[in-house]
Amino acid sequence: MIHLISVKTWVHCILLSPVQVANNLMDMDQDPRKRLCFADGRRKVDYVLVYHYRKRSSVRGSPSQHRLSIISNGSYPLGVEEKDPEGGKDEPAEVVVDVEPLDPADGEKIMIREEFEGNLKDAGLEIECDKENKAHGHAFIRLHAPWQVLSREAEFLKIKVPTKKVRHSRAPSESQDKPELLHDEWARYGAFYKYQPVDLIRKYFGEKIGLYFAWLGVYTQLLIPASVVGIIVFFYGWATVETNIPSQEMCDEDQNFTMCPLCDRACDYWHLSTACGTARASHLFDNPATVFFAIFMSVWAAMFLEHWKRRQISLNYSWDLTGMEEEEVRSHMNTVTLCYSLITITLNVVLPSQSGHEKLTWRDRLPGYLINISSILFMFGVTCSAVFSVIIYRITISALMAMSPDPEVKSNVRVTVTATAVIINLVVILILDEIYGMVAAWLTELEIPKTETNFEERLILKAFLLKFMNAYAPIFYVAFFKGRFAGHPGDYVYVFNDYRMEECAPGGCLIELCIQLSIIMLGKQLIQNNIFEIGIPKLKKLCRTLKDKERAPKEIVEQPGRRQQWHLDYDLEPFDGLTPEYMEMIIQFGFVSLFVASFPLAPLFALLNNVIEIRLDAKKFVTELRRPDAIRAKDIGIWYNILSGLGKFSVIINAFVISFTSDFIPRLVYQYMYSETGTMHGFINHTLSYFNVSNFKPGTVPSISSLGKDVTFCRYKDYREPPWSTEPYQFSKQYWSVLAARLGFVILFQNLVITMSMLVAWVIPDVPKNISEQLKKEKTLLVDVFLNEEKEK
Amino acid sequence: MIHLISVKTWVHCILLSPVQVANNLMDMDQDPRKRLCFADGRRKVDYVLVYHYRKRSSVRGSPSQHRLSIISNGSYPLGVEEKDPEGGKDEPAEVVVDVEPLDPADGEKIMIREEFEGNLKDAGLEIECDKENKAHGHAFIRLHAPWQVLSREAEFLKIKVPTKKVRHSRAPSESQDKPELLHDEWARYGAFYKYQPVDLIRKYFGEKIGLYFAWLGVYTQLLIPASVVGIIVFFYGWATVETNIPSQEMCDEDQNFTMCPLCDRACDYWHLSTACGTARASHLFDNPATVFFAIFMSVWAAMFLEHWKRRQISLNYSWDLTGMEEEEVRSHMNTVTLCYSLITITLNVVLPSQSGHEKLTWRDRLPGYLINISSILFMFGVTCSAVFSVIIYRITISALMAMSPDPEVKSNVRVTVTATAVIINLVVILILDEIYGMVAAWLTELEIPKTETNFEERLILKAFLLKFMNAYAPIFYVAFFKGRFAGHPGDYVYVFNDYRMEECAPGGCLIELCIQLSIIMLGKQLIQNNIFEIGIPKLKKLCRTLKDKERAPKEIVEQPGRRQQWHLDYDLEPFDGLTPEYMEMIIQFGFVSLFVASFPLAPLFALLNNVIEIRLDAKKFVTELRRPDAIRAKDIGIWYNILSGLGKFSVIINAFVISFTSDFIPRLVYQYMYSETGTMHGFINHTLSYFNVSNFKPGTVPSISSLGKDVTFCRYKDYREPPWSTEPYQFSKQYWSVLAARLGFVILFQNLVITMSMLVAWVIPDVPKNISEQLKKEKTLLVDVFLNEEKEK
Repeated sequence: MIHLISVKTWVHCILLSPVQVANNLMDMDQDPRKRLCFADGRRKVDYVLVYHYRKRSSVRGSPSQHRLSIISNGSYPLGVEEKDPEGGKDEPAEVVVDVEPLDPADGEKIMIREEFEGNLKDAGLEIECDKENKAHGHAFIRLHAPWQVLSREAEFLKIKVPTKKVRHSRAPSESQDKPELLHDEWARYGAFYKYQPVDLIRKYFGEKIGLYFAWLGVYTQLLIPASVVGIIVFFYGWATVETNIPSQEMCDEDQNFTMCPLCDRACDYWHLSTACGTARASHLFDNPATVFFAIFMSVWAAMFLEHWKRRQISLNYSWDLTGMEEEEVRSHMNTVTLCYSLITITLNVVLPSQSGHEKLTWRDRLPGYLINISSILFMFGVTCSAVFSVIIYRITISALMAMSPDPEVKSNVRVTVTATAVIINLVVILILDEIYGMVAAWLTELEIPKTETNFEERLILKAFLLKFMNAYAPIFYVAFFKGRFAGHPGDYVYVFNDYRMEECAPGGCLIELCIQLSIIMLGKQLIQNNIFEIGIPKLKKLCRTLKDKERAPKEIVEQPGRRQQWHLDYDLEPFDGLTPEYMEMIIQFGFVSLFVASFPLAPLFALLNNVIEIRLDAKKFVTELRRPDAIRAKDIGIWYNILSGLGKFSVIINAFVISFTSDFIPRLVYQYMYSETGTMHGFINHTLSYFNVSNFKPGTVPSISSLGKDVTFCRYKDYREPPWSTEPYQFSKQYWSVLAARLGFVILFQNLVITMSMLVAWVIPDVPKNISEQLKKEKTLLVDVFLNEEKEK
Repeated sequence: MIHLISVKTWVHCILLSPVQVANNLMDMDQDPRKRLCFADGRRKVDYVLVYHYRKRSSVRGSPSQHRLSIISNGSYPLGVEEKDPEGGKDEPAEVVVDVEPLDPADGEKIMIREEFEGNLKDAGLEIECDKENKAHGHAFIRLHAPWQVLSREAEFLKIKVPTKKVRHSRAPSESQDKPELLHDEWARYGAFYKYQPVDLIRKYFGEKIGLYFAWLGVYTQLLIPASVVGIIVFFYGWATVETNIPSQEMCDEDQNFTMCPLCDRACDYWHLSTACGTARASHLFDNPATVFFAIFMSVWAAMFLEHWKRRQISLNYSWDLTGMEEEEVRSHMNTVTLCYSLITITLNVVLPSQSGHEKLTWRDRLPGYLINISSILFMFGVTCSAVFSVIIYRITISALMAMSPDPEVKSNVRVTVTATAVIINLVVILILDEIYGMVAAWLTELEIPKTETNFEERLILKAFLLKFMNAYAPIFYVAFFKGRFAGHPGDYVYVFNDYRMEECAPGGCLIELCIQLSIIMLGKQLIQNNIFEIGIPKLKKLCRTLKDKERAPKEIVEQPGRRQQWHLDYDLEPFDGLTPEYMEMIIQFGFVSLFVASFPLAPLFALLNNVIEIRLDAKKFVTELRRPDAIRAKDIGIWYNILSGLGKFSVIINAFVISFTSDFIPRLVYQYMYSETGTMHGFINHTLSYFNVSNFKPGTVPSISSLGKDVTFCRYKDYREPPWSTEPYQFSKQYWSVLAARLGFVILFQNLVITMSMLVAWVIPDVPKNISEQLKKEKTLLVDVFLNEEKEK
C-alpha cells in the first residue's frame, strides 16, 4: 500500500493510438497494422506502458533488507505497514534486488511493478513485455484489451448513467481515430479561415482538449465583431483629430502657454505647442467613442460568457455528457480510453488505504497554508519592486539624459526612456512568468490537496493570481498612479532626495498607457508564441536526443531496424496539461477586456494572434506531443470562473480608466459647467494652473533659459488655486467638482454596465433552442415507447 | 379539440385526502373510513371532481344547433374544426341540450364532460357520480384508482428517473397523511419556537408548499442574528447620544444659530437649539455603527441566499428530487397525487393539437406586449402621482397650518403633517397593492404564455415590479429627493407658484426616512396580516354561505344527514397559489435589506412578524383552505432570482443612503479635512451657510418677528458661498469636496460589499458536506453491487 506514490510516478504512460499514430509520419511505408500488434501479429496493441530499468541479477533478498528499502523510500512509519495484511512483508521473499546497491528503492519498484502487472492480468488484460536485454534502458509493456473486457467495462461505466441507455446504446466501438484527417483539416495554417473539426478533435484527444479548442474557437470568433468595432472607434478618432478643439488649441502656437520646466535646473521653460504631436496622438485613443467602446466591450464580455455557456451545453449534448457527474471524469467510451480507465481502476484498487493516510487535520495543513500565504505575499512584493525598479530606472535615466549637453540626446529623452523601460518591463514579466509558474506548482504541492481536480484548481488559481499580477502591475501603475504623486511646481516629490517623481507626457497618461499596453501585449504574445512554445520545446528535444545518444549509443546500433512506433512516440515531448494554453489565453482576455478603453485595437491584435495560435497548438498536439490521455470533462472548470471574474473586474477598471486616466470627464465638466460659449474653446487654458516662478525653491530654477527673463508665471497641468488667491496652490473648486464628476461617472458606468450585462445574461437562454426542442422530442419518444410497451402487455 | 379551454375551467378539482380530512373537524364521530368510500363501502375515494349543473331534459339537438353552440362558444373559425377528423361535427347528434336556451355552451360542456369521464374510465379509474336530483347545484364525481393503475402510473413516472431506482424503490404506498399531527405540531401559535415539521408538510401538501415553508423557516431563522446585531447597533446609538458632539452642539443654546425661516412671511427666524430633540433622535439611527450594520446586512443577504441554496439541496436530496427535470413538475408518488397526475394526463390526451393553435407569431403577440408595456408605464405614472399628491398635501397643509393664528396648531405642524401624510401613503399603498395584483394577472393573460410555469413566472415578475414600486416609491422619495429641490434662501423653488417645496427636518432626512419606513413596514404587515389574510377570507366565506342558503335552502333541508366530507371541503376557500405569500415576504425582505442603513430595527420587526406569520399561514393551510393539489417543485423558482436581485440592489441603495441621506460623510470630511482640532467641534457651524436677510425677495421676509430687527444674517443647512464672497450663494469648495467624498464612498462601499458577498458565496459550498459524502457513499455502494454481480457471473 505504501508504495503507491512510487507506482504512480513509475507509470509513465504513453498512450498509443491503436490504429496508427500520426505523430511521426516517417514510417508510413511499413504496414501500420503489423507494427501495432503483439508478436503473434493478431492482438492489437491498445495501450503501452514504459519504465526505465537497470540490468540486474536475480538475488534472493533477505526480508530485513526489503524493509530497509521501504524505510528509505519515504518517511512512513513501520507500524502502518504491519497493519496491512496484503503488504509485502509476509510475502515470499522472491525479491529482485538491483545490482547497484546505491538505489535500494529499485527493488521495491520491481516488486510493485510485478504486483501491478498481476492486477492488470486479473482485470482481463493481456500483456506483452519487452525483454530487458540491455544494461539499462526503457522497457515497454504493451497491453491488449479483449473485446469482452471492454464490453464489461463499458457496461460498468454506463450503469452510472443509465438514462443514456435509451438515447444511444453505444458499445465499445472500434475507435475512429483519424489523425491524418485532423492533420489535414485542422493542424495547418492554410485552414485558418475554417471552423475547427471539434468532434474529430474530441474523438482523438478526448473531451477536455476538445473543450479547450471549442472554447478557443468561440473566443476567436467573438473577437471578430470586437475587432471591427475597435477599428471603427480608432478610425473615428483618426477622422476627428483635425476638428478636435483641445488638440487644435494645444497645437496653436498663438496661444503660447509657457509651461513650467519638466526637471529641476537642467530643463528650461517650454511652450505647450511643442507637445502638439502627443496631443494629436492621444486624441486617437481618448475620444467619446472610446467610452462607447468600453461599454460595448463590457457587454461583449458578458455575451461571450453566455455564448460559451450555450456552446458548452450543445457540446455536452452532442458528446453525451449531460448526465455526467463530477466523479466520473475518468470514464471513457472508446477502446483506448476504456483501456486507460481499466488501468487506472487497477491502480486504484491498491489506493483506498492511501486516502486514509491523507486525512490530514488542519494542524498538518497549517504550515503549508502559512508558507503559501507568505510566499504569495512575497511574490507580490517581488512584482511591485520590479515595477518600482523600472520607475527608478526611468527617473534616473531621464534625469541624466536631461543633464547631457548634447541637444540630440535631450530631444529624444522621452522616447528613448519610455521604449527601453517598457522593454525591460517586458523581459522582467517573461522571466517572472516562468518562475511564478514553478512557484505555484510547488506551493500547491505543499497544500496536499485531496484529489487531482482539487490540485489542478488550486494550482490554476495561484498561477493565475501571480501571473496576472505580474503581467498587469506595470500597466496598473501607468494607468492609475503615474504622475499622481509628482507634486506641483514649488512642491515636487523627490525620491532618493534627488530625483523628481515622474509625470505623464503633456498629452495625458492615456497615450503612455496605450504604448505600454500595446508593447507588453504584442511582445508577450510574439515572444511566448515563438520562443516558449516553438523554440524551447525544440531545444529540449534536441538536448534529450543528444543525451540519449551519449548514454546509449550501443543499443541504437544494436537494433537499427527494430524501432517500433512506441519508441518513436516515446521520443516526443510529454503532454504537460492544458493549463499553460488556457493561461496564455486568459491573460490575453485580460488585455482585451481590462484596459480596452485605452487601446481599442487590442481585440484586433488578439484576433490576429489567436488565428495563428489555434493552428500552432493544433500542430503541436498532432505532431509534437505524445498523445495525451483522453480525459472526460463537462466544462472548462475554474477557467470559466476566472473569465467571469475578469469580466466583472474589467467593468470597474474601465470605469476608472475613462474617468481618471482619460480627459473625458474634465472636458465634459468644462463644456457644461465652466465654458462660457458652451463649446470646448478655452479648455486647455482651463486645465492649466498658474505658478509664480518666484516661488521656485532655491536651486530648482532653470539654470540656462532662453525665456527665463520674461517669465513671471509658468503653467502646469492641474486644478490648483493661482498664486494670487487666498489659498495659493491649494486644490481649487474646479478640482473638487471634476473629482466629483469623475467619481459620479464611475458609479454611473459601473452600475449601467452591470445592469446591461445582467440583462444580456438573462435574455440569452443558456440552453440553445434546438437542444431544448431535441430534448423535448426525446422525452416524447420515451413516453411513446413506454405507452406502446404498456399496450402490448 | 376546440373546447379544451372550457374543459379546463370546468374541472374544479377538490383534492380530498384519502384517509381523513383535517380541515373540518366537526364530523369526527362518524367512521371516517366509511364516509370516504364509494357506495359499496369498499372502494376508497381517491379524488373528487365537482361541477355545477342545471336540471335539464334530454333532447335530440340538431347538428346545426350544435354547431351554432360551438361558434357562440368562442371566436374560432369553422375551418379549423373542419380539418379536425375527431371533431364533433360528424358525430352522431346525440347531444344533450340545456332546457335553458340562454346558455347553449352548457350542452357543449356536458358533452365534453362525458367524453372526459370516458377517458378517465379508459385510463382505468373507477367512477361514482352523484345523481343530479335537484334543479341545479353541485354534483360530485368521486374517483377510485385501483392498485394496478397506480402501480403502472408509478412505474411510468419512474422510467424518467431511473437512477433513482437503485436508491429507493418506492411503490405507490398508502399515503401517510397525518393532518392532525400537522395541526398539533405546526399549525398553532404555541409551537412558535419549534422547527417546522417540513417533511410532514411536504407529505401532506406536496413539494411546492413544503419548499415555501422551508424557505420561510430559513429566512426567519436567519433574521435572528440580524435582529440581534440591529438591536446592538440601536443601543450603541442610544448609549453614545450623550457624548455625540454634533448633537450636543445642536442642543447647546449658547451657540445660538439664527436659522432662516421655514416658510415665507408666516414663519419667523428660529434658533437651531429648538431642533435639539430631532438631532438626538437622529443620532440613534445615524452613527458610525450604522455603516457597519449596512455592510453586515449586505453580507447577511448573500449568506441567506447561500444558506437557502444549501437547504434546498438537502431537501432535494431527502425528498428525492435530485434527478427531477423541469418537465416533470407534475409527477407524484403517493395515491392522491398519482391519481391527480392520471387525471391531468387524461386531460392532456386531448390537448396536443391545442398547442398547435397556440403557436402565435410575434404579430399576434405584439398588441399584447404593447398593452403590457404601456399599462406598466401607466401604473408607474399612477404610483408617482400618488406620491406627488401626498407631497402636495404635505406642502399645502403645512403652509395652511403655519398661517393659522393658533400657536398650538403652529407648534405641532411637523408632527401632524408627517403622521397624516404617512398614513395616507400607507392607505394608498394598500389599495394600489390589490389593484396592481389584478392588473398584473390581466396583463399576463394578454401575453398568452405557453406553459403554466411560464405564466406564473411572468405574472410574478410583473406583480413584483408593480408592488415593489408601489411600496417603495414614497420611501425612495424621502431618502433621495426630499429637500434636494427646495432651493436656498432668496431662491426657493415653488410649486403652483405659491407653495415652497418641502425641506427635511433640521435633524436631517434620515430621521424622516426612518419614520416613513417603520410606519409603512409595520402598518403594511399588521394590516395585511390581520385584515387581508384573516378578515377578508372570513368575510368572503360568510358571503358565500349566505348566498348558498338564499339560493338553495330546500336542498339542505332535504338531505340533512347526508352532507359528506366533500361537501364540507367544497365550502372551504379555494387555494389561490403561493404567490401572495411569497410576495408579502419578498416585499418584507426589501424592507430588511434595502434601507436597513436607516432603520436597524427592521430585521427585529420582520422577525416578530414572521414568527406569527408562519403559524398563521399554517393554520390557514390546514383548516381554512381546500387542500391544494400537491405540485412537485425542485426550487422556489423565480423568487430566488428576485431575492438575489434585491440583495444586489440593496448594496447600491444602502451605499447611497449612508453617503447622501445620512451625515456620515460630511462628518468624516469635516473631521479630517477642515477641523482645526481634528475633533468634531465646530461641525454644525461648518454645515450652515450664511444668508444676508436683505437679499430676501420682497414679500418673503417674516411679517411678524421677535428677532427680526437684530438679524442681518440667517443660517441655512447647505454648503454655499457666503454673501460676502465673489460668487455669493454658489456651491462652495466644501460642497464639491463633500460630494466627491460621498461619491467615493459609494464606489468603495459598493465594491467592497460586492467582493465580500462573492467571497461568501464562494467560500460556502452549495452542497452540504453530509450530502456530498452521502452521495459518494451511494456511488461506492453502486460500484460494489455491480462488482458483486460481475463476480457471480
